[in-house]
Amino acid sequence: MLNVRSVLVTGSNRGIGLELVRQLVGRSKQPEWIFATCRDPEGSRVQDLKNLAAKYQGVKIVPMDVADPSSVQAAAARVTEHLQGAGLNLLINNAGIVRDRTLESETPKDMSEVYKNNTIGPMMVSQAFLPLLRKASRESPQKGMSCSKAAIVNMSSEAGSITKLLAWELGHILNYRCSKAALNMLSRCQSLGWAEDEILCVALHPGIVKTDMLTSEVPFELTVDKCVQKILNTLGSLSEKESGTFVNWEGETVPW
Amino acid sequence: MLNVRSVLVTGSNRGIGLELVRQLVGRSKQPEWIFATCRDPEGSRVQDLKNLAAKYQGVKIVPMDVADPSSVQAAAARVTEHLQGAGLNLLINNAGIVRDRTLESETPKDMSEVYKNNTIGPMMVSQAFLPLLRKASRESPQKGMSCSKAAIVNMSSEAGSITKLLAWELGHILNYRCSKAALNMLSRCQSLGWAEDEILCVALHPGIVKTDMLTSEVPFELTVDKCVQKILNTLGSLSEKESGTFVNWEGETVPW
Repeated sequence: MLNVRSVLVTGSNRGIGLELVRQLVGRSKQPEWIFATCRDPEGSRVQDLKNLAAKYQGVKIVPMDVADPSSVQAAAARVTEHLQGAGLNLLINNAGIVRDRTLESETPKDMSEVYKNNTIGPMMVSQAFLPLLRKASRESPQKGMSCSKAAIVNMSSEAGSITKLLAWELGHILNYRCSKAALNMLSRCQSLGWAEDEILCVALHPGIVKTDMLTSEVPFELTVDKCVQKILNTLGSLSEKESGTFVNWEGETVPW
Repeated sequence: MLNVRSVLVTGSNRGIGLELVRQLVGRSKQPEWIFATCRDPEGSRVQDLKNLAAKYQGVKIVPMDVADPSSVQAAAARVTEHLQGAGLNLLINNAGIVRDRTLESETPKDMSEVYKNNTIGPMMVSQAFLPLLRKASRESPQKGMSCSKAAIVNMSSEAGSITKLLAWELGHILNYRCSKAALNMLSRCQSLGWAEDEILCVALHPGIVKTDMLTSEVPFELTVDKCVQKILNTLGSLSEKESGTFVNWEGETVPW
Protein backbone atom coordinates (compact mmCIF):
# COMPACT_ATOMS: atom_id res chain seq x y z
CA MET A 1 0.00 0.00 0.00
CA LEU A 2 1.24 3.42 -0.93
CA ASN A 3 1.88 5.37 2.24
CA VAL A 4 3.68 8.62 1.61
CA ARG A 5 4.13 11.61 3.86
CA SER A 6 4.85 13.94 0.95
CA VAL A 7 4.21 13.75 -2.78
CA LEU A 8 4.56 16.11 -5.71
CA VAL A 9 2.58 15.86 -8.95
CA THR A 10 3.45 18.03 -11.95
CA GLY A 11 0.77 19.08 -14.43
CA SER A 12 -1.90 18.55 -11.79
CA ASN A 13 -4.62 20.94 -12.90
CA ARG A 14 -6.31 18.44 -15.20
CA GLY A 15 -6.38 14.93 -16.59
CA ILE A 16 -4.45 12.23 -14.78
CA GLY A 17 -2.54 14.77 -12.67
CA LEU A 18 -5.70 16.26 -11.18
CA GLU A 19 -7.18 12.81 -10.53
CA LEU A 20 -3.97 11.72 -8.78
CA VAL A 21 -4.29 14.67 -6.39
CA ARG A 22 -8.02 13.98 -5.89
CA GLN A 23 -7.47 10.32 -5.02
CA LEU A 24 -4.43 11.04 -2.86
CA VAL A 25 -6.50 13.32 -0.61
CA GLY A 26 -9.28 10.74 -0.60
CA ARG A 27 -7.14 7.95 0.84
CA SER A 28 -7.46 6.72 4.40
CA LYS A 29 -3.75 7.46 4.81
CA GLN A 30 -3.78 10.96 3.40
CA PRO A 31 -0.32 12.40 2.73
CA GLU A 32 0.65 15.30 4.95
CA TRP A 33 1.78 17.32 1.92
CA ILE A 34 0.49 17.03 -1.63
CA PHE A 35 2.31 19.51 -3.86
CA ALA A 36 0.18 20.03 -6.93
CA THR A 37 2.12 21.95 -9.53
CA CYS A 38 0.89 23.55 -12.72
CA ARG A 39 2.23 26.10 -15.16
CA ASP A 40 -0.09 28.93 -14.26
CA PRO A 41 -2.23 28.68 -11.12
CA GLU A 42 -3.95 31.90 -12.15
CA GLY A 43 -4.78 30.63 -15.64
CA SER A 44 -7.94 29.03 -16.88
CA ARG A 45 -8.79 25.40 -16.12
CA VAL A 46 -7.29 25.45 -12.65
CA GLN A 47 -10.61 25.82 -10.81
CA ASP A 48 -11.02 22.10 -10.01
CA LEU A 49 -7.57 22.02 -8.45
CA LYS A 50 -8.25 25.23 -6.52
CA ASN A 51 -11.44 23.74 -5.13
CA LEU A 52 -9.49 20.73 -3.92
CA ALA A 53 -6.83 22.91 -2.31
CA ALA A 54 -9.50 25.04 -0.60
CA LYS A 55 -11.04 21.90 0.91
CA TYR A 56 -7.88 20.08 1.97
CA GLN A 57 -5.14 21.86 3.84
CA GLY A 58 -2.51 19.34 2.73
CA VAL A 59 -2.85 20.27 -0.94
CA LYS A 60 -0.45 23.06 -1.85
CA ILE A 61 -0.66 24.53 -5.32
CA VAL A 62 2.83 25.44 -6.52
CA PRO A 63 3.47 27.21 -9.83
CA MET A 64 5.98 25.35 -11.98
CA ASP A 65 6.64 25.40 -15.70
CA VAL A 66 8.73 22.25 -16.17
CA ALA A 67 10.24 23.72 -19.34
CA ASP A 68 11.62 26.76 -17.49
CA PRO A 69 14.73 26.20 -15.32
CA SER A 70 14.14 29.23 -13.09
CA SER A 71 10.52 28.23 -12.51
CA VAL A 72 11.64 24.72 -11.50
CA GLN A 73 14.22 26.17 -9.10
CA ALA A 74 11.66 28.51 -7.55
CA ALA A 75 9.22 25.61 -7.08
CA ALA A 76 11.89 23.48 -5.40
CA ALA A 77 12.64 26.36 -3.01
CA ARG A 78 8.95 26.75 -2.14
CA VAL A 79 8.46 23.05 -1.55
CA THR A 80 11.60 22.87 0.60
CA GLU A 81 10.21 25.70 2.73
CA HIS A 82 6.82 23.99 3.12
CA LEU A 83 8.46 20.72 4.15
CA GLN A 84 10.30 22.40 7.03
CA GLY A 85 13.17 19.95 7.08
CA ALA A 86 11.28 16.87 5.91
CA GLY A 87 12.08 15.07 2.63
CA LEU A 88 9.95 14.36 -0.42
CA ASN A 89 8.86 10.74 -0.78
CA LEU A 90 7.34 10.66 -4.20
CA LEU A 91 7.89 12.78 -7.30
CA ILE A 92 5.43 12.14 -10.13
CA ASN A 93 6.61 13.73 -13.37
CA ASN A 94 3.18 13.81 -14.96
CA ALA A 95 3.18 17.06 -16.96
CA GLY A 96 3.42 16.49 -20.69
CA ILE A 97 2.34 17.84 -24.04
CA VAL A 98 1.76 16.53 -27.56
CA ARG A 99 1.46 18.13 -31.00
CA ASP A 100 -0.67 16.52 -33.66
CA ARG A 101 1.77 15.87 -36.50
CA THR A 102 2.46 13.23 -39.11
CA LEU A 103 5.90 11.98 -40.09
CA GLU A 104 5.92 14.43 -42.97
CA SER A 105 4.32 17.45 -41.31
CA GLU A 106 6.51 17.17 -38.19
CA THR A 107 8.50 20.33 -37.43
CA PRO A 108 11.78 21.06 -35.62
CA LYS A 109 9.91 23.53 -33.40
CA ASP A 110 7.31 21.01 -32.23
CA MET A 111 9.96 18.30 -31.78
CA SER A 112 12.01 20.67 -29.67
CA GLU A 113 9.16 22.04 -27.55
CA VAL A 114 7.69 18.64 -26.79
CA TYR A 115 11.15 17.31 -25.84
CA LYS A 116 11.65 20.31 -23.54
CA ASN A 117 8.41 19.59 -21.70
CA ASN A 118 8.32 15.79 -21.77
CA THR A 119 11.99 14.85 -21.37
CA ILE A 120 14.18 17.76 -20.30
CA GLY A 121 11.45 18.88 -17.88
CA PRO A 122 11.39 15.62 -15.88
CA MET A 123 15.19 15.61 -15.92
CA MET A 124 15.39 19.14 -14.48
CA VAL A 125 12.60 18.58 -11.96
CA SER A 126 14.30 15.38 -10.76
CA GLN A 127 17.62 17.19 -10.35
CA ALA A 128 15.96 20.05 -8.46
CA PHE A 129 14.10 17.75 -6.05
CA LEU A 130 16.92 15.22 -5.67
CA PRO A 131 18.12 16.66 -2.33
CA LEU A 132 14.59 16.27 -0.91
CA LEU A 133 14.24 12.73 -2.31
CA ARG A 134 17.62 11.77 -0.86
CA LYS A 135 16.61 13.20 2.48
CA ALA A 136 13.37 11.16 2.46
CA SER A 137 15.32 8.03 1.57
CA ARG A 138 17.97 8.57 4.26
CA GLU A 139 15.46 9.29 6.97
CA SER A 140 13.13 6.41 6.16
CA PRO A 141 13.23 3.40 8.51
CA GLN A 142 12.20 1.13 5.59
CA LYS A 143 14.71 -1.20 3.94
CA GLY A 144 15.04 -1.42 0.16
CA MET A 145 13.12 0.72 -2.28
CA SER A 146 9.50 1.75 -2.49
CA CYS A 147 7.35 4.62 -3.69
CA SER A 148 6.40 5.21 -0.05
CA LYS A 149 10.07 5.84 0.79
CA ALA A 150 11.65 7.71 -2.13
CA ALA A 151 10.74 7.47 -5.80
CA ILE A 152 10.59 9.17 -9.16
CA VAL A 153 7.69 8.11 -11.38
CA ASN A 154 7.98 9.35 -14.95
CA MET A 155 4.66 9.34 -16.76
CA SER A 156 5.52 7.76 -20.09
CA SER A 157 3.36 6.02 -22.66
CA GLU A 158 3.28 2.87 -24.72
CA ALA A 159 3.24 5.29 -27.64
CA GLY A 160 6.88 5.80 -26.62
CA SER A 161 7.64 2.08 -26.60
CA ILE A 162 9.76 1.51 -29.73
CA THR A 163 8.65 -2.11 -29.65
CA LYS A 164 4.90 -1.52 -29.30
CA LEU A 165 4.41 1.88 -30.98
CA LEU A 166 0.90 2.09 -29.52
CA ALA A 167 -1.76 3.49 -31.85
CA TRP A 168 0.57 4.24 -34.77
CA GLU A 169 -2.35 3.98 -37.19
CA LEU A 170 -4.16 6.68 -35.22
CA GLY A 171 -1.36 9.23 -35.21
CA HIS A 172 2.32 9.45 -35.97
CA ILE A 173 2.97 12.15 -33.31
CA LEU A 174 6.70 11.70 -33.74
CA ASN A 175 7.36 14.63 -31.36
CA TYR A 176 5.58 12.72 -28.57
CA ARG A 177 6.90 9.23 -29.34
CA CYS A 178 10.52 10.41 -29.49
CA SER A 179 10.17 12.42 -26.28
CA LYS A 180 8.71 9.41 -24.43
CA ALA A 181 11.35 6.99 -25.74
CA ALA A 182 13.91 9.48 -24.41
CA LEU A 183 12.00 9.74 -21.12
CA ASN A 184 12.20 5.95 -20.82
CA MET A 185 15.96 6.22 -21.29
CA LEU A 186 16.05 8.94 -18.62
CA SER A 187 14.10 6.69 -16.20
CA ARG A 188 16.53 3.82 -16.67
CA CYS A 189 19.56 6.11 -16.26
CA GLN A 190 18.07 7.64 -13.11
CA SER A 191 17.47 4.18 -11.66
CA LEU A 192 21.15 3.33 -12.12
CA GLY A 193 22.52 6.70 -11.04
CA TRP A 194 20.45 6.91 -7.91
CA ALA A 195 20.30 3.24 -6.90
CA GLU A 196 22.83 3.90 -4.12
CA ASP A 197 20.48 6.51 -2.71
CA GLU A 198 17.73 3.87 -2.76
CA ILE A 199 15.50 6.04 -4.91
CA LEU A 200 13.14 3.92 -6.98
CA CYS A 201 12.78 5.19 -10.57
CA VAL A 202 10.27 3.92 -13.12
CA ALA A 203 8.60 4.85 -16.37
CA LEU A 204 4.84 4.34 -16.21
CA HIS A 205 2.27 3.84 -18.96
CA PRO A 206 -1.01 5.06 -17.48
CA GLY A 207 -3.23 3.35 -20.06
CA ILE A 208 -5.23 5.06 -22.74
CA VAL A 209 -7.40 7.45 -20.83
CA LYS A 210 -9.86 10.03 -22.04
CA THR A 211 -8.25 13.35 -21.14
CA ASP A 212 -7.82 16.66 -22.96
CA MET A 213 -4.53 15.40 -24.34
CA LEU A 214 -6.09 12.86 -26.68
CA THR A 215 -7.24 14.41 -29.89
CA SER A 216 -7.71 11.35 -32.06
CA GLU A 217 -10.37 8.69 -31.87
CA VAL A 218 -8.52 6.23 -29.72
CA PRO A 219 -10.53 3.40 -28.17
CA PHE A 220 -10.19 4.15 -24.48
CA GLU A 221 -9.13 1.40 -22.14
CA LEU A 222 -10.05 3.15 -18.92
CA THR A 223 -11.83 6.04 -17.30
CA VAL A 224 -9.55 8.50 -15.51
CA ASP A 225 -10.69 7.51 -12.02
CA LYS A 226 -10.31 3.76 -12.66
CA CYS A 227 -6.91 4.37 -14.22
CA VAL A 228 -5.65 6.41 -11.28
CA GLN A 229 -6.97 3.86 -8.77
CA LYS A 230 -4.93 1.19 -10.51
CA ILE A 231 -1.88 3.43 -10.80
CA LEU A 232 -1.90 4.16 -7.07
CA ASN A 233 -2.23 0.44 -6.33
CA THR A 234 0.64 -0.30 -8.67
CA LEU A 235 2.83 2.39 -7.13
CA GLY A 236 2.17 0.85 -3.75
CA SER A 237 3.41 -2.52 -4.99
CA LEU A 238 6.71 -1.46 -6.62
CA SER A 239 10.07 -2.43 -5.12
CA GLU A 240 13.72 -2.37 -6.20
CA LYS A 241 12.94 -5.23 -8.60
CA GLU A 242 10.92 -2.83 -10.74
CA SER A 243 13.30 0.12 -10.48
CA GLY A 244 14.60 0.99 -13.94
CA THR A 245 11.74 -0.74 -15.74
CA PHE A 246 8.69 0.37 -17.73
CA VAL A 247 5.39 -0.70 -16.19
CA ASN A 248 1.77 -0.08 -17.07
CA TRP A 249 -1.10 1.00 -14.79
CA GLU A 250 -1.56 -2.59 -13.68
CA GLY A 251 2.11 -3.15 -12.94
CA GLU A 252 2.79 -5.25 -16.05
CA THR A 253 6.14 -4.76 -17.74
CA VAL A 254 6.11 -2.84 -21.02
CA PRO A 255 8.98 -3.52 -23.47
CA TRP A 256 11.20 -0.59 -24.43
CA MET B 1 26.75 -6.17 -52.18
CA LEU B 2 26.06 -2.48 -51.79
CA ASN B 3 25.69 -0.99 -55.23
CA VAL B 4 24.43 2.59 -55.12
CA ARG B 5 24.41 5.21 -57.79
CA SER B 6 24.10 8.05 -55.30
CA VAL B 7 24.75 8.33 -51.59
CA LEU B 8 24.80 11.14 -49.06
CA VAL B 9 26.75 11.08 -45.78
CA THR B 10 26.27 13.81 -43.17
CA GLY B 11 29.11 14.79 -40.85
CA SER B 12 31.62 13.46 -43.33
CA ASN B 13 34.70 15.55 -42.58
CA ARG B 14 36.02 13.21 -39.90
CA GLY B 15 35.56 9.98 -38.00
CA ILE B 16 33.22 7.36 -39.38
CA GLY B 17 31.68 9.80 -41.89
CA LEU B 18 35.02 10.54 -43.54
CA GLU B 19 35.95 6.86 -43.64
CA LEU B 20 32.59 6.02 -45.24
CA VAL B 21 33.33 8.46 -48.06
CA ARG B 22 36.88 7.14 -48.38
CA GLN B 23 35.78 3.52 -48.69
CA LEU B 24 32.86 4.36 -51.00
CA VAL B 25 35.24 5.92 -53.52
CA GLY B 26 37.59 2.96 -53.11
CA ARG B 27 35.01 0.36 -54.15
CA SER B 28 35.09 -1.44 -57.47
CA LYS B 29 31.53 -0.21 -58.04
CA GLN B 30 32.12 3.42 -57.16
CA PRO B 31 28.93 5.45 -56.76
CA GLU B 32 28.41 8.11 -59.41
CA TRP B 33 27.65 10.71 -56.73
CA ILE B 34 28.91 10.78 -53.17
CA PHE B 35 27.52 13.81 -51.38
CA ALA B 36 29.74 14.49 -48.40
CA THR B 37 28.16 17.05 -46.15
CA CYS B 38 29.66 18.92 -43.23
CA ARG B 39 28.74 21.99 -41.23
CA ASP B 40 31.46 24.25 -42.53
CA PRO B 41 33.51 23.20 -45.56
CA GLU B 42 35.73 26.23 -45.02
CA GLY B 43 36.38 25.42 -41.36
CA SER B 44 39.28 23.55 -39.84
CA ARG B 45 39.53 19.74 -40.03
CA VAL B 46 38.02 19.50 -43.50
CA GLN B 47 41.34 19.06 -45.32
CA ASP B 48 41.16 15.26 -45.54
CA LEU B 49 37.72 15.46 -47.11
CA LYS B 50 38.87 18.19 -49.50
CA ASN B 51 41.77 16.03 -50.60
CA LEU B 52 39.37 13.20 -51.36
CA ALA B 53 37.06 15.48 -53.33
CA ALA B 54 40.01 16.88 -55.30
CA LYS B 55 41.03 13.37 -56.26
CA TYR B 56 37.62 11.92 -57.10
CA GLN B 57 35.15 13.79 -59.23
CA GLY B 58 32.18 11.91 -57.80
CA VAL B 59 32.71 13.32 -54.32
CA LYS B 60 30.77 16.54 -53.87
CA ILE B 61 31.25 18.49 -50.68
CA VAL B 62 27.96 20.10 -49.66
CA PRO B 63 27.65 22.44 -46.68
CA MET B 64 24.90 21.34 -44.29
CA ASP B 65 24.30 22.06 -40.63
CA VAL B 66 21.75 19.40 -39.71
CA ALA B 67 20.51 21.55 -36.83
CA ASP B 68 19.60 24.44 -39.13
CA PRO B 69 16.43 24.05 -41.22
CA SER B 70 17.44 26.56 -43.89
CA SER B 71 20.86 24.94 -44.27
CA VAL B 72 19.20 21.54 -44.73
CA GLN B 73 16.84 22.98 -47.36
CA ALA B 74 19.72 24.61 -49.22
CA ALA B 75 21.69 21.35 -49.22
CA ALA B 76 18.69 19.43 -50.58
CA ALA B 77 18.36 21.97 -53.40
CA ARG B 78 22.05 21.65 -54.29
CA VAL B 79 21.97 17.87 -54.28
CA THR B 80 18.82 17.86 -56.41
CA GLU B 81 20.61 20.06 -58.92
CA HIS B 82 23.68 17.82 -59.02
CA LEU B 83 21.54 14.72 -59.56
CA GLN B 84 19.94 16.21 -62.68
CA GLY B 85 16.73 14.25 -62.37
CA ALA B 86 18.15 11.12 -60.72
CA GLY B 87 17.11 10.02 -57.25
CA LEU B 88 19.14 9.45 -54.09
CA ASN B 89 19.66 5.79 -53.17
CA LEU B 90 21.20 6.01 -49.74
CA LEU B 91 21.02 8.65 -47.01
CA ILE B 92 23.37 8.08 -44.09
CA ASN B 93 22.49 10.32 -41.14
CA ASN B 94 25.90 10.10 -39.54
CA ALA B 95 26.45 13.59 -38.06
CA GLY B 96 26.17 13.65 -34.29
CA ILE B 97 27.47 15.31 -31.17
CA VAL B 98 27.87 14.49 -27.50
CA ARG B 99 28.46 16.54 -24.33
CA ASP B 100 30.35 15.04 -21.45
CA ARG B 101 27.89 15.23 -18.55
CA THR B 102 26.83 13.17 -15.59
CA LEU B 103 23.24 12.61 -14.47
CA GLU B 104 23.64 15.46 -11.99
CA SER B 105 25.67 17.90 -14.09
CA GLU B 106 23.42 17.49 -17.15
CA THR B 107 21.92 20.78 -18.40
CA PRO B 108 18.77 21.70 -20.35
CA LYS B 109 20.98 23.48 -22.89
CA ASP B 110 23.15 20.44 -23.64
CA MET B 111 20.12 18.14 -23.70
CA SER B 112 18.42 20.43 -26.16
CA GLU B 113 21.43 21.01 -28.44
CA VAL B 114 22.34 17.35 -28.66
CA TYR B 115 18.71 16.44 -29.42
CA LYS B 116 18.65 19.09 -32.16
CA ASN B 117 21.71 17.60 -33.83
CA ASN B 118 21.21 13.89 -33.17
CA THR B 119 17.44 13.47 -33.47
CA ILE B 120 15.72 16.49 -35.00
CA GLY B 121 18.57 16.80 -37.54
CA PRO B 122 18.10 13.30 -39.00
CA MET B 123 14.33 13.87 -39.01
CA MET B 124 14.68 17.12 -40.99
CA VAL B 125 17.30 15.76 -43.35
CA SER B 126 15.13 12.72 -44.07
CA GLN B 127 12.12 14.93 -44.79
CA ALA B 128 14.17 17.17 -47.08
CA PHE B 129 15.63 14.27 -49.08
CA LEU B 130 12.45 12.19 -49.10
CA PRO B 131 11.45 13.27 -52.65
CA LEU B 132 14.85 12.11 -53.93
CA LEU B 133 14.67 8.83 -52.02
CA ARG B 134 11.17 8.19 -53.35
CA LYS B 135 12.35 8.90 -56.85
CA ALA B 136 15.23 6.42 -56.49
CA SER B 137 12.84 3.79 -55.15
CA ARG B 138 10.26 4.32 -57.91
CA GLU B 139 12.83 4.22 -60.66
CA SER B 140 14.70 1.17 -59.40
CA PRO B 141 14.10 -2.10 -61.26
CA GLN B 142 14.81 -4.03 -58.01
CA LYS B 143 11.98 -5.65 -56.06
CA GLY B 144 11.65 -5.25 -52.29
CA MET B 145 13.91 -3.09 -50.18
CA SER B 146 17.66 -2.60 -50.09
CA CYS B 147 20.25 0.05 -49.32
CA SER B 148 21.22 -0.06 -52.99
CA LYS B 149 17.69 0.96 -53.96
CA ALA B 150 16.46 3.50 -51.39
CA ALA B 151 17.36 3.67 -47.71
CA ILE B 152 17.82 5.83 -44.65
CA VAL B 153 20.53 4.70 -42.25
CA ASN B 154 20.49 6.50 -38.92
CA MET B 155 23.79 6.25 -37.09
CA SER B 156 22.73 5.36 -33.58
CA SER B 157 24.64 3.72 -30.74
CA GLU B 158 24.24 0.95 -28.23
CA ALA B 159 24.69 3.75 -25.72
CA GLY B 160 21.17 4.66 -26.84
CA SER B 161 19.83 1.14 -26.29
CA ILE B 162 17.70 1.39 -23.14
CA THR B 163 18.23 -2.33 -22.65
CA LYS B 164 22.01 -2.39 -23.05
CA LEU B 165 23.04 1.11 -21.90
CA LEU B 166 26.51 0.57 -23.33
CA ALA B 167 29.40 1.89 -21.21
CA TRP B 168 27.26 3.43 -18.47
CA GLU B 169 30.12 3.09 -16.00
CA LEU B 170 32.30 5.15 -18.34
CA GLY B 171 29.94 8.06 -18.77
CA HIS B 172 26.34 8.96 -18.10
CA ILE B 173 26.08 11.30 -21.14
CA LEU B 174 22.33 11.50 -20.71
CA ASN B 175 22.10 14.08 -23.52
CA TYR B 176 23.52 11.52 -25.96
CA ARG B 177 21.69 8.43 -24.69
CA CYS B 178 18.30 10.17 -24.75
CA SER B 179 18.94 11.58 -28.23
CA LYS B 180 19.89 8.14 -29.58
CA ALA B 181 16.92 6.38 -27.94
CA ALA B 182 14.76 8.99 -29.66
CA LEU B 183 16.65 8.45 -32.92
CA ASN B 184 15.86 4.75 -32.65
CA MET B 185 12.20 5.66 -32.28
CA LEU B 186 12.50 7.91 -35.34
CA SER B 187 14.03 5.06 -37.35
CA ARG B 188 11.22 2.70 -36.48
CA CYS B 189 8.56 5.33 -37.28
CA GLN B 190 10.23 6.12 -40.60
CA SER B 191 10.27 2.42 -41.50
CA LEU B 192 6.51 2.24 -40.96
CA GLY B 193 5.66 5.55 -42.54
CA TRP B 194 7.70 4.96 -45.66
CA ALA B 195 7.27 1.20 -46.11
CA GLU B 196 4.84 1.82 -48.97
CA ASP B 197 7.55 3.78 -50.74
CA GLU B 198 9.86 0.78 -50.24
CA ILE B 199 12.42 2.89 -48.43
CA LEU B 200 14.45 0.78 -46.03
CA CYS B 201 15.04 2.50 -42.67
CA VAL B 202 17.37 1.27 -39.93
CA ALA B 203 19.19 2.42 -36.83
CA LEU B 204 22.82 1.31 -36.88
CA HIS B 205 25.31 0.86 -34.04
CA PRO B 206 28.73 1.31 -35.66
CA GLY B 207 30.71 -0.33 -32.84
CA ILE B 208 32.95 1.47 -30.40
CA VAL B 209 35.45 3.17 -32.63
CA LYS B 210 38.29 5.49 -31.79
CA THR B 211 37.20 8.85 -33.22
CA ASP B 212 37.29 12.43 -31.94
CA MET B 213 33.87 11.91 -30.42
CA LEU B 214 35.04 9.55 -27.71
CA THR B 215 36.44 11.37 -24.73
CA SER B 216 36.45 8.65 -22.12
CA GLU B 217 38.67 5.63 -21.87
CA VAL B 218 36.43 3.17 -23.64
CA PRO B 219 37.97 -0.14 -24.70
CA PHE B 220 37.73 0.07 -28.48
CA GLU B 221 36.25 -2.81 -30.37
CA LEU B 222 37.39 -1.74 -33.82
CA THR B 223 39.56 0.56 -35.86
CA VAL B 224 37.68 3.04 -38.03
CA ASP B 225 38.61 1.35 -41.30
CA LYS B 226 37.67 -2.16 -40.10
CA CYS B 227 34.41 -0.79 -38.70
CA VAL B 228 33.45 0.95 -41.94
CA GLN B 229 34.34 -2.14 -44.01
CA LYS B 230 31.93 -4.16 -41.91
CA ILE B 231 29.27 -1.45 -42.00
CA LEU B 232 29.34 -1.32 -45.80
CA ASN B 233 29.09 -5.10 -45.96
CA THR B 234 26.16 -5.03 -43.57
CA LEU B 235 24.40 -2.29 -45.51
CA GLY B 236 24.77 -4.42 -48.63
CA SER B 237 23.04 -7.34 -46.89
CA LEU B 238 19.98 -5.54 -45.49
CA SER B 239 16.50 -6.19 -46.87
CA GLU B 240 12.90 -5.39 -45.85
CA LYS B 241 13.28 -7.95 -43.03
CA GLU B 242 15.65 -5.58 -41.26
CA SER B 243 13.76 -2.37 -41.99
CA GLY B 244 12.65 -0.79 -38.72
CA THR B 245 15.22 -2.66 -36.64
CA PHE B 246 18.41 -1.73 -34.82
CA VAL B 247 21.51 -3.52 -36.12
CA ASN B 248 25.18 -3.34 -35.30
CA TRP B 249 28.16 -3.08 -37.68
CA GLU B 250 28.04 -6.83 -38.21
CA GLY B 251 24.33 -6.90 -38.90
CA GLU B 252 23.36 -8.39 -35.54
CA THR B 253 20.14 -7.13 -33.98
CA VAL B 254 20.52 -4.75 -31.03
CA PRO B 255 17.60 -4.60 -28.56
CA TRP B 256 15.87 -1.24 -28.08
